[in-house]
Amino acid sequence: MPHINLPNLPGIRGPMAYRPETAKPLNALAEVLLRDDNNTLSRGERELIGTYVSSLNDCFFCQNVHGALAGHYLNYDINAIDAVKKDFPSTAISEKMKALLSIAASVQQGGKFVTRQQIEGARQLGATDREIHDTVLIAAAFCMYNRYVDGLATWAPQDRQFYVDRAPQRAEEGYVGFDLFK
Amino acid sequence: MPHINLPNLPGIRGPMAYRPETAKPLNALAEVLLRDDNNTLSRGERELIGTYVSSLNDCFFCQNVHGALAGHYLNYDINAIDAVKKDFPSTAISEKMKALLSIAASVQQGGKFVTRQQIEGARQLGATDREIHDTVLIAAAFCMYNRYVDGLATWAPQDRQFYVDRAPQRAEEGYVGFDLFK
Repeated sequence: MPHINLPNLPGIRGPMAYRPETAKPLNALAEVLLRDDNNTLSRGERELIGTYVSSLNDCFFCQNVHGALAGHYLNYDINAIDAVKKDFPSTAISEKMKALLSIAASVQQGGKFVTRQQIEGARQLGATDREIHDTVLIAAAFCMYNRYVDGLATWAPQDRQFYVDRAPQRAEEGYVGFDLFK
Repeated sequence: MPHINLPNLPGIRGPMAYRPETAKPLNALAEVLLRDDNNTLSRGERELIGTYVSSLNDCFFCQNVHGALAGHYLNYDINAIDAVKKDFPSTAISEKMKALLSIAASVQQGGKFVTRQQIEGARQLGATDREIHDTVLIAAAFCMYNRYVDGLATWAPQDRQFYVDRAPQRAEEGYVGFDLFK
């Protein structure tokens, strides 16, 4: 049961419907960070960064919503997404993505955990300043979303297939302009 | 030196000027959370929550910008703000604010650290659901802002009086609509 009296919606949708004034910039941030096409990181790559950070923060709702979206965009099944969460260096993702996930993992611990070596390593594998910027901000933003979801003790469907099934529709509708109560 | 090539502005202003598309929702969130007058927590109380979380995250820029703003609104000098950061239970802030800062400290550790006992305690001291919601989201949001600022290794003026001197102007201009390059 959530800590406060929220509309009966799963995960972040409860507090977002409860407080639409803050939902608006929260969704606008997700839209520009994760979905805007003016980005050399694909939507799938950006959702994968968010998924990985959500798994490090142990946020069930976020890692399943965004893991399913990453899987949808990247054409990965749920096992492939789980493999990235569990041990990304051993997966077939690009070396540049591995370097960016390593930076994201440091951000999850705290901003000062990011090292110059990690940045240089990512750059040598082809990461641009903008990609490094967006990786840091995506990781930081999920440290917020995850805390918002779990700090209010929101509920989430436990059947992971639920998220997989809804990913195509979520991918299409995006983070802004949809009906929160649906 | 910042990890990436940013406009030469202090703290969060560098990456915000570098990427105005994400700065917009980041500032819109700060404006509605920290500054909107439709709130039973005062601006000073909300800035104090952000200051406290920023100190827990060891973010020099954020704890000084927002500490100076909290001091401006609450008429606290820098020593009184430092006392809250160091040991808020021993200060003269209200018992309700102490309960909310305790919740914010749990959010800083991770969403699941917030306990039902903390929520009940805050409620018994007069905290409303909306105040608890905003406390959780302010704490979560500063876990993002702090990581954004330090994850990119931005620079910050080291003279703490700099922030105190600028607080009245910052309080007036707010988080949206100002010129990032000033």
